[in-house]
Amino acid sequence: MKEFLSELAEYLAIPSVSAKPEHAEDCLRAAGWVGGRLGEMGFATRLVDTGGHPLVMGQRRVAGRVPHLVVYGHYDVQPAEPLELWKTPAFELVVKGQKAYGRGVADNKGPTLALLAGLSDALAKNPDLPLNITCLIEGEEEVGSANLHKTLSALKKELGHIDAVLLSDTSSGSHKDLWITTGLRGVMAFDISLQGLARDLHSGNGGPIPNAVRELTRVLGGLYDAQGWVRIPGFYKGITRGAKAEMAALKRIFTPAEFAHEIGAKGYYRMDGMSPFEVNRFFPSLELNGIYGGYQGEGSKTIIPARATAKMTCRIAPGQDPDALRRAILAEIEKRVDKRLFDLSIKIHEKGTAAYATSLPHLSARVKADTSVFAAAFGAVHSAVKEATGNPPQYLREGASIPVLSNIKRILGADAIMLGLFREDSLLHSPNENVDLRLLKIGREVWADFFGRMGAVRGR
Amino acid sequence: MKEFLSELAEYLAIPSVSAKPEHAEDCLRAAGWVGGRLGEMGFATRLVDTGGHPLVMGQRRVAGRVPHLVVYGHYDVQPAEPLELWKTPAFELVVKGQKAYGRGVADNKGPTLALLAGLSDALAKNPDLPLNITCLIEGEEEVGSANLHKTLSALKKELGHIDAVLLSDTSSGSHKDLWITTGLRGVMAFDISLQGLARDLHSGNGGPIPNAVRELTRVLGGLYDAQGWVRIPGFYKGITRGAKAEMAALKRIFTPAEFAHEIGAKGYYRMDGMSPFEVNRFFPSLELNGIYGGYQGEGSKTIIPARATAKMTCRIAPGQDPDALRRAILAEIEKRVDKRLFDLSIKIHEKGTAAYATSLPHLSARVKADTSVFAAAFGAVHSAVKEATGNPPQYLREGASIPVLSNIKRILGADAIMLGLFREDSLLHSPNENVDLRLLKIGREVWADFFGRMGAVRGR
Repeated sequence: MKEFLSELAEYLAIPSVSAKPEHAEDCLRAAGWVGGRLGEMGFATRLVDTGGHPLVMGQRRVAGRVPHLVVYGHYDVQPAEPLELWKTPAFELVVKGQKAYGRGVADNKGPTLALLAGLSDALAKNPDLPLNITCLIEGEEEVGSANLHKTLSALKKELGHIDAVLLSDTSSGSHKDLWITTGLRGVMAFDISLQGLARDLHSGNGGPIPNAVRELTRVLGGLYDAQGWVRIPGFYKGITRGAKAEMAALKRIFTPAEFAHEIGAKGYYRMDGMSPFEVNRFFPSLELNGIYGGYQGEGSKTIIPARATAKMTCRIAPGQDPDALRRAILAEIEKRVDKRLFDLSIKIHEKGTAAYATSLPHLSARVKADTSVFAAAFGAVHSAVKEATGNPPQYLREGASIPVLSNIKRILGADAIMLGLFREDSLLHSPNENVDLRLLKIGREVWADFFGRMGAVRGR
Repeated sequence: MKEFLSELAEYLAIPSVSAKPEHAEDCLRAAGWVGGRLGEMGFATRLVDTGGHPLVMGQRRVAGRVPHLVVYGHYDVQPAEPLELWKTPAFELVVKGQKAYGRGVADNKGPTLALLAGLSDALAKNPDLPLNITCLIEGEEEVGSANLHKTLSALKKELGHIDAVLLSDTSSGSHKDLWITTGLRGVMAFDISLQGLARDLHSGNGGPIPNAVRELTRVLGGLYDAQGWVRIPGFYKGITRGAKAEMAALKRIFTPAEFAHEIGAKGYYRMDGMSPFEVNRFFPSLELNGIYGGYQGEGSKTIIPARATAKMTCRIAPGQDPDALRRAILAEIEKRVDKRLFDLSIKIHEKGTAAYATSLPHLSARVKADTSVFAAAFGAVHSAVKEATGNPPQYLREGASIPVLSNIKRILGADAIMLGLFREDSLLHSPNENVDLRLLKIGREVWADFFGRMGAVRGR
């Protein structure tokens, strides 16, 4: 563990914030660091030019008909702001008891390193392990993996058939209660900006003068009702309700009150009494991630602001068409803006990827009878989790998104196995992001055991 | 003019931003600078402790029953942000042709210096001018003059009877078309903050989770309708409509289209076809001066923001009770917030001062027959403007606020004469604030002539 922590400290110290142009070189450094790590493991490694931050690709090929497993992870992280809310330096690994803190320690540097360490352990134990393995560690997950599509298409021939994609970029209950994520929502991201004046104006003119901040609150505030529903025609089109088995599993894990407490909320939008777990996984969401306009300093400043911007993301539910949903949202916003007075500009960061679901929702008699390598992998992770923790994994959907999985499935035809190695209270994307080191340790053991088990599986 | 500009350059270079604690020393420097200027003019000058930024008081007393005139101005300025929109350095006087640029050049450093220069000229011409004059140059006008009330009450006895307050802190059409402002709206200022989570949360949880930015747009956006009206019960209570003479004067000055062009707007809120000039002067307004919450950087950040804040000001129309209006606004906001999920905090910067109107709305037969010193002063400024420009002044209300005038009237019993020395396009409170130097020059002449004429008026 000591060596693992010193590696994680090195990796975490590189502020590879993909959203910020000023961190482009840090992203390159992080890519180089990961490439070096894969090289040490004996992988043939290169940085693939994506047009954006590079993709780190490491390959291990053996002779014969063996399974081909892809390890996926990302070396980029979310911005660390607001910095003043961090209790420890954001880009420094700080360990306190069983917890480690730092930007990316949970999303995704810690879990990726645990996966790679497990793989390393399996290869150390059996250097001739009959598995083809490709590691794809990308640098644009936090900005929507937009450049990865064409890169994957370009690599398709070289990669050949893939049996399963392996990743640890989702959550679990604890090191005793590991979760396998079987589905995720899709995501789109865009900014809405309004301008009503050539420049800020003295608010002594106020009353009849177009105020961009006021219009933005009117336009966006009107998209929501007091129950928490989004009031856009077609917004909930295509959704499916949570299956009974999944809803029951969710209930086993925690109550809504426990979950609210864990995330620091007093409660949930009423939403006509719908389970927040169901809403979070089976309904789309439209969140305002940030808003700004006018004066933000101390005291008051009597201006009518010329401009205002809101940053929005929409999570796309299983069953929904991202293009139709995007059109519905933007059409409603366009409709609500008084264009006689305001210039509306919409900047799309991420057009929208569909929700993802594995072909196997949970380990069942059907999966056991399935002779595919993917079903074998699904069984192997099940057994490895049971072996390490004494408990079988829980099979759950998540409300978050890993857009690349839909693209991998579409382009490369492979399904994913997602073993969660952070917790719901790990504060992903927030100050004081943290991870339970026991979870990383058990994750490493599970993955090592998993790769060992897969060595016994015949390839296609 | 050269000497005047060099003085103005010195004064403007002091960044006396009263709203920002880090500029407290600059405010003190500006107070000292003004005090020095008054001392040079032979005034007995001191800095009066207000509990906030000091009040500069300069006194000239002569024997006998002479008029007592108070010159009012303020040495503090608005914050200069956003700095990147300034074409010249904000705190540096830059002269281009007839225009001078810089924060405070119009509001209020340039006009105050023009008034003081006029007074200086009158005293140079007649050192024995039979007038008592008190200069009160405060440092908290831009933050609501909150500390001035009790200071004025404390000075009341020392000041004795006051016949008129003189100031140049309003607008005019041009150096050929001077305006006397006869009324202003009141103002209140407050911040509305919401918190729905202990900390920012990954938006993968989005849908059922309280989002403070979303709630803030819903709560505040719902206060406005698409016509531009404020939807708060009691918001328009007590208002009076613009008198015919005043509305006619406004129409003489510019058309709504011309005014919109001048301020950089495409048009006005519809407001059922109401004249924007009437709405701006005779109706209250509720403006969002700024808003912030969540992520504001490049690209996207998938969080549910924990906190959001809006900065608001309300202009109080003639006839309205500030306390009742404040209660109505805050009650509606309180009512709209879902307090089960969100903590609401309201920070009041300025409780609210009533609209101000002089006892004399314009020069009329009634004013000419009035034997008060104030009526004589009203006549003197009328004649001085006619003499200097060839045209009589226009008598108009303004939509802006100078809260101290209501307090001076209430506490010291004196009415104000407001000669406008900047223009509607002077960009007060905005980047590239500017002033027409011809207007400052003519203002100096008018005020010099005015003081000369007042020397012939007998005191009470």
